[in-house]
Amino acid sequence: MERKLKLALIGARGHVGYVFKALPDLPEVDLCAVSSGSGESAEPLVKNAEARGFSPRVFDDYLAMLDAEKPDVVSVCGPFELHAKMCCEALERGISVFCEKPIALELGDLDRIRAAYDRCDKEKTKIISMVGYRGEAPFRTAYDAVKRGLVGKVKMVNTRKSYKLGVRPDYYHARATYGGTIPWVGSHALDWIYWMGGNANFKTVQAIHDTADNRGNGDLEMTALFTCVLENNVMGSASIDYLRPAAAPTHGDDQVRVAGTLGVVEVMHGKVTLITETEAKELELLPERGIFYDFARHLLYGEPCVVDAEATFELTRACLAARDCADRNRI
Amino acid sequence: MERKLKLALIGARGHVGYVFKALPDLPEVDLCAVSSGSGESAEPLVKNAEARGFSPRVFDDYLAMLDAEKPDVVSVCGPFELHAKMCCEALERGISVFCEKPIALELGDLDRIRAAYDRCDKEKTKIISMVGYRGEAPFRTAYDAVKRGLVGKVKMVNTRKSYKLGVRPDYYHARATYGGTIPWVGSHALDWIYWMGGNANFKTVQAIHDTADNRGNGDLEMTALFTCVLENNVMGSASIDYLRPAAAPTHGDDQVRVAGTLGVVEVMHGKVTLITETEAKELELLPERGIFYDFARHLLYGEPCVVDAEATFELTRACLAARDCADRNRI
Repeated sequence: MERKLKLALIGARGHVGYVFKALPDLPEVDLCAVSSGSGESAEPLVKNAEARGFSPRVFDDYLAMLDAEKPDVVSVCGPFELHAKMCCEALERGISVFCEKPIALELGDLDRIRAAYDRCDKEKTKIISMVGYRGEAPFRTAYDAVKRGLVGKVKMVNTRKSYKLGVRPDYYHARATYGGTIPWVGSHALDWIYWMGGNANFKTVQAIHDTADNRGNGDLEMTALFTCVLENNVMGSASIDYLRPAAAPTHGDDQVRVAGTLGVVEVMHGKVTLITETEAKELELLPERGIFYDFARHLLYGEPCVVDAEATFELTRACLAARDCADRNRI
Repeated sequence: MERKLKLALIGARGHVGYVFKALPDLPEVDLCAVSSGSGESAEPLVKNAEARGFSPRVFDDYLAMLDAEKPDVVSVCGPFELHAKMCCEALERGISVFCEKPIALELGDLDRIRAAYDRCDKEKTKIISMVGYRGEAPFRTAYDAVKRGLVGKVKMVNTRKSYKLGVRPDYYHARATYGGTIPWVGSHALDWIYWMGGNANFKTVQAIHDTADNRGNGDLEMTALFTCVLENNVMGSASIDYLRPAAAPTHGDDQVRVAGTLGVVEVMHGKVTLITETEAKELELLPERGIFYDFARHLLYGEPCVVDAEATFELTRACLAARDCADRNRI
């Protein structure tokens, strides 16, 4: 029996590119419809779809799209502050969700998503966030090394996310539409800690952040520092900022260091190094595996997916709790 | 008029090597006497002194040495838990002090040192701790870049201290004689934050630490994470551990990153890189300048010294406050 997966897209903010990148390798997927999910034009979505041979129907109202098309899965990249509502609307219709992170900007909204998910048939309806780094070659390689025990028992995970600020759209300037730098940029770092640290929940989180010197970007925090302890007592740290200078060779300075009882594995500048008691070497990279490809294969064939609903909820919870902690410290 | 500086040494734990290294370049210094300051043998001190052409008197009792020899300056590298008392005894005799860090293991002892210092003629009697990194080529070079404004206004200082554990003497195994990993290893990192962050005092500090998996080393913490905000709102972070694997090329993985409004300067693997809005490059290293050489020239000729009493007290205060904070979190 040939399996098919009907896909609809909501919005083009953030990483909907993960979907487009995967489509050529997923003949089972039919991209049936798109909606901006806001007052914005759906034109970028249509153009990208057409470039891959699809002619999706275009809806102004994403709810009408969900009801009319009844897709199996929907990509949610609408306005950040609508992620939570869009997730709930999809889940309530039994539609699986591939949502930009963070999936909610407030803890109450996260609770509503979880409640909607809990009413789903979980064998059929899934939700994950776009933690696409998990599929990138250096991070997959580092995780593989950790999982194979090459660093022994993990003790500490240190991470860095440093971005170029560039020119940001207006919705980055207000907490209500942006959510904060810890959830937006930091979510990747917190996910590395959670994932590399053994997929254990966050026991305690602490954070500070600061909006000063943000070059007219309103509420946007330029810097943040995060520390945590996971339930398995792994310690984690994240340094998060928009201070990467224009002349830097890449947009982001993404770093992860996993230190264990037998060794240290480190991702830096796209390379992975491993030092143990007996050797220090660069690891050969595993091939990249796109996160939407992974999720679609999971939905189609039950293949393992690099992330699941529980990890998605826990990561979102930690991001929002850390941001709220940083807010209180500032007062 | 030829100036002379009479020097005595107490103890050989820690970085008394800074003194021996500087002696060939300091013909003004007369190393007159040594004492272990504990039940240990003074033999290592004598041998090192003789190798540099000195024949110091040897005292079992360091107080008798201070009273009999009346040195101008004393190096304090005795048992860690006696640093504070040794500093006080020297200061009360008007003797300048070059003390292993941390100069005290408890905040009350630090207060006693400050009180003794406050009774001194501060033009004549000085005290600094052995923050020798400040004189090392990469750190001097990075500081120079920051001071020249190449990164603009400093926003964040991230630091790493990772050491090989190796085999540690017994006094590392008990809090009472070791003081803790944040003061012992972390003091370097906290000093980088304070120094590179603009020599501003610590406004808030947070820390966690953990003794688990310490391979039989008693109270010794294997891992610690530290975050702070300085009075000038610079954020600082430190990752501190003994997890550096045996096969690593160096004993310590020492890293500093200073991120500002115009650029980022970074010390890693002994090299210094600078990225600004217009260029990314490696900086040519300034020459090393030994900290005891610096201090001796300061005492002899009033030349500027890379560190002073106020910085020493503030650094010690931050280390002990962070350790005590981490202790409370653990409970």
